[in-house]
Amino acid sequence: MLTFIGLGLYDKNDISEKGLSFIRSADHVFLEGYTSRLMGTTREELEAFYQKPVRLLMRADVEQHPGELLDCAARGNTVFLCAGDPMVSTTHADLRIRAADRGIPTAIIHGSSVVSAVCGLSGLQNYRFGKSCSVPFPQAHWSPTSPLDVIAENRALRLHTLVYLDIQDGRYMTANEGIGLLEGMARKKQVTIPLYIGIARAGSDAPVVRAGTADALCSMDFGPPLHVLVVPGELHDMERQYLERFAGLC
Amino acid sequence: MLTFIGLGLYDKNDISEKGLSFIRSADHVFLEGYTSRLMGTTREELEAFYQKPVRLLMRADVEQHPGELLDCAARGNTVFLCAGDPMVSTTHADLRIRAADRGIPTAIIHGSSVVSAVCGLSGLQNYRFGKSCSVPFPQAHWSPTSPLDVIAENRALRLHTLVYLDIQDGRYMTANEGIGLLEGMARKKQVTIPLYIGIARAGSDAPVVRAGTADALCSMDFGPPLHVLVVPGELHDMERQYLERFAGLC
Repeated sequence: MLTFIGLGLYDKNDISEKGLSFIRSADHVFLEGYTSRLMGTTREELEAFYQKPVRLLMRADVEQHPGELLDCAARGNTVFLCAGDPMVSTTHADLRIRAADRGIPTAIIHGSSVVSAVCGLSGLQNYRFGKSCSVPFPQAHWSPTSPLDVIAENRALRLHTLVYLDIQDGRYMTANEGIGLLEGMARKKQVTIPLYIGIARAGSDAPVVRAGTADALCSMDFGPPLHVLVVPGELHDMERQYLERFAGLC
Repeated sequence: MLTFIGLGLYDKNDISEKGLSFIRSADHVFLEGYTSRLMGTTREELEAFYQKPVRLLMRADVEQHPGELLDCAARGNTVFLCAGDPMVSTTHADLRIRAADRGIPTAIIHGSSVVSAVCGLSGLQNYRFGKSCSVPFPQAHWSPTSPLDVIAENRALRLHTLVYLDIQDGRYMTANEGIGLLEGMARKKQVTIPLYIGIARAGSDAPVVRAGTADALCSMDFGPPLHVLVVPGELHDMERQYLERFAGLC
């Protein structure tokens, strides 16, 4: 059997009781180490916590050579751990399909995800968010403006936008970098974004949540990763009060 | 101190390790019992699991007379438990603001939420969802079509829609009822919805996930609550394969 388990947002203690008991009774434990990671822990700490070895998988192990992982799952209880809630993007959907193709039973144990955590942290209501988007690190001949298009479309509908920030080769885009890149796109398209919310270390004991203009936030130090942004659409009265109270909105 | 703790999706074991250890060291434990509930457990079972009394709060206790709860939080470690992830809607945002107004420190410990769980269960990617909506139970002189408008707008943008189903006075709208109501709205507006996904008991050991036409799904028994719907927009190839594999899509 292959069970996908979400580790939740930040450290080893964000896993559910259900997920932890599954891991403790598992024959094989694999940790996905290429789409995101828990910033508040290490593989070594997880091994000590679970009292068993944890094998780190990189992208090629899962997408090109999943044979060994699936062999383990065909023989015994195998768990596949990832940060957040499993399969929020389709990155691992293919793995679950491959397992099913081999007749291996599969299941999902959910974890906390930034998708919903941003609501509590910012006070913005889930049902007033539109489509989300991602800001990639700029490359030599490629500077897309599509994230700005998503934000502008959502704002036209008075909706909020959750903006994921790129992770590449152990480099984590900061809220400041993300805002800088979005402001560059906004200038090109002659669009104005009046308000950003920067969120750092969701799920930790010391998350930082700050709302303000690009200028105000760009000079702030949000501290260690992960960071994420929200670009609000129209703010309801309660959302505004919450941001004033808990995110320094003036 | 007042700590909002998400209990996660379904039963007592969906809480995070972090949340559980906070509850076990808390002076006062309150359980929010009016917006949703964990279908896989009871207050009595939670009390046994936490080894301490759990006080159930109804809407008036929180929104009109929060004084006692806030007095507890001013004096000692007080936890406020709710299903899913706290403050996905603003229902409890006001309580956090009132606590802050009294100088009481607050924090959030996140839990798994249907907002992200639908992605893993259906295989639909989070970043391809638009705004979500809710279908209310019909009332004598009120039959809104706004949920259908949200779905139609999202579909025009090729986006998926998460559709929450009403909970009222211990009555839980089924996927079948929700589809029936949406089909009624669709006929009024001369809109066609070719595909629905019904999801029951997300987070349990036996979630049901079925994709099909309104006719195909309306005759299905999804079993006990909670149910939720997804109305897909354009399906990517991987999303379609996943639905064929895990949701009976033909």
